[in-house]
Amino acid sequence: VIMAGGSGTRFWPLSRRRRPKQLLALGDSDLTMLAATVRRIRPLAKIEDLYVVTGAAIVDDVARLVPDALVDNILAEPFGRNTAPCVGWAALRVRRRDPRGIMAVLPADHVIGDEEAFREVARRAVRACEGGALATIGVTPSRPETGYGYIELGEELSAGVHRAERFVEKPDRATAEAYVRGGSHVWNSGMFFFRADAILAEIERQMPELHAGLEEIDAAAGRDDEADAVRTVYGRIAGQSIDYGIMEHAREIVVCPGRFGWDDVGSWAAAYEMRRGSADGRGNVAEGDLVVCDAEGCLAWTEPRKLVALVGVQDVIVVDTEDALLVCSRGQVQKVKDVVEQIAARRRDDVL
Amino acid sequence: VIMAGGSGTRFWPLSRRRRPKQLLALGDSDLTMLAATVRRIRPLAKIEDLYVVTGAAIVDDVARLVPDALVDNILAEPFGRNTAPCVGWAALRVRRRDPRGIMAVLPADHVIGDEEAFREVARRAVRACEGGALATIGVTPSRPETGYGYIELGEELSAGVHRAERFVEKPDRATAEAYVRGGSHVWNSGMFFFRADAILAEIERQMPELHAGLEEIDAAAGRDDEADAVRTVYGRIAGQSIDYGIMEHAREIVVCPGRFGWDDVGSWAAAYEMRRGSADGRGNVAEGDLVVCDAEGCLAWTEPRKLVALVGVQDVIVVDTEDALLVCSRGQVQKVKDVVEQIAARRRDDVL
Repeated sequence: VIMAGGSGTRFWPLSRRRRPKQLLALGDSDLTMLAATVRRIRPLAKIEDLYVVTGAAIVDDVARLVPDALVDNILAEPFGRNTAPCVGWAALRVRRRDPRGIMAVLPADHVIGDEEAFREVARRAVRACEGGALATIGVTPSRPETGYGYIELGEELSAGVHRAERFVEKPDRATAEAYVRGGSHVWNSGMFFFRADAILAEIERQMPELHAGLEEIDAAAGRDDEADAVRTVYGRIAGQSIDYGIMEHAREIVVCPGRFGWDDVGSWAAAYEMRRGSADGRGNVAEGDLVVCDAEGCLAWTEPRKLVALVGVQDVIVVDTEDALLVCSRGQVQKVKDVVEQIAARRRDDVL
Repeated sequence: VIMAGGSGTRFWPLSRRRRPKQLLALGDSDLTMLAATVRRIRPLAKIEDLYVVTGAAIVDDVARLVPDALVDNILAEPFGRNTAPCVGWAALRVRRRDPRGIMAVLPADHVIGDEEAFREVARRAVRACEGGALATIGVTPSRPETGYGYIELGEELSAGVHRAERFVEKPDRATAEAYVRGGSHVWNSGMFFFRADAILAEIERQMPELHAGLEEIDAAAGRDDEADAVRTVYGRIAGQSIDYGIMEHAREIVVCPGRFGWDDVGSWAAAYEMRRGSADGRGNVAEGDLVVCDAEGCLAWTEPRKLVALVGVQDVIVVDTEDALLVCSRGQVQKVKDVVEQIAARRRDDVL
């Protein structure tokens, strides 16, 4: 189950409401992040076993990016309600085919450098949840990142499978450094593995209203009014993430640590970091032609490509599209969402 | 005589070889600087008395911007050879109609805020050169500008007409401040007034090779081989400015001081300064829509217009065109010409 929702604010102006992050080629290949996610999991799953959950507004764009055989397996959410309803709805579909069918829930907007290493961990996670546990993949931290959640590893239940001792929200710098030194914390990757019946049972226990809504949707499955039922239920339920809503308080939760060049590329600064290897001698990176005079630490991204000249600027991110241009200090990329809010307040939907 | 040559490097990427500064609307109106120059001088000159000297590469663009009656008075230089040959060639044309005809030589890339005040000074300069003197307009300095040349005012020969005591190259800051305090120095505006015979006599005295070349061109005037003669002579002569080549060592040179909101808009930083009055509360100026988060002192210029968002950047100039984009520290605009050189070295003539 590939989760391909998302609002497209953090990568504005490249990302838009109709073209959120997962439809961009932000990784190190020309593939969109969604297409790369499909390709990455294909050795582990038959094509007809893949599902994509996405937003109704971009369902046509998603359909163009996935193999034809997958088009009937796209679930279009009428509104974004975070990941818990998304996972629950997909679980209904899997349960209809096999209640004990194992789901891998994979965000479509992650970059993974070593795909085979990733699949090794995924196979381990599949085995770990066969008995009914909820499993998550934890990434061995390569730096004291303060932008991710962490999971504390507990007792090792079998080779490479630990009890999840505790979920930790984004830590401060000192705490993150201690985690990296200590070696018993991993990044919460947001990738989950569980049997359909197991996750639905946890949803019933921890989020009974969502569960009731899901059963309504399931009852309408295949009927003419299925889309209406989905819309009614989504209109009523609260948004909640699968992490906070379910995983952190689940009865039996295990974590499979691994290291496979994972990044969730959460901002333009992260996109810059990912490309540092291709920088010039002063840390400038470009998608497109670049001319530099006394500039350093900059990222220039133009679509369509044009020549960019940087003169005397440091740590600046430049993103140029046909109708909008962003020039942003690399240390202040989190404010890009404020820009998007300002544009929305001006009712400039044409550039959102 | 409007001098509309120029190479189009300092305002790259808006200015190009085929669209140098004088063909841009860098002033505070929608007129190109050339069209504004024509409009400004019209109350003082009959249309058939105007001449425009420009480069062969842009002669068609120039012809589109000037009144139809002026098209036959465009002199197209085959190569740029600075201002002395340009003035000399125009003087030949004037001499053919009236050897004592008075020429006003006006660069096409200046901004003038108070046009009537300018014309008052120009009328004074015309009177000052009737007896054969070379006259120049000096601008009373409004700030200790280190980017302009200065002229020291000598004895006042008649009301508002001084002997030019000395030409001074671009001074350092302390010297410029002393000039402004002292009140006896004016900016060299690069606008000159003289009789055709007077300037040609000075050219003959100070630049005999140029004078010989000019006489060759004059001998071919109106003949089929006129363009060939111009090309041959221009191919042979050295480039030299009218200031250094003639004015600074002329026998009788006077200066008419005035203040009329003059600027030569020599860089993107100057274009920013000119627009400061329309800046937001933090000194940001835009041609086009602008969204700002913690940015200050910036200029955003887009052609065609697009939305620009500035986040966390200070004193940055952003100039966006269809095929090239410049992001430049406002304090380093002089390096824009290095960018143009780099682009030329890469043989990217498409963006020059």
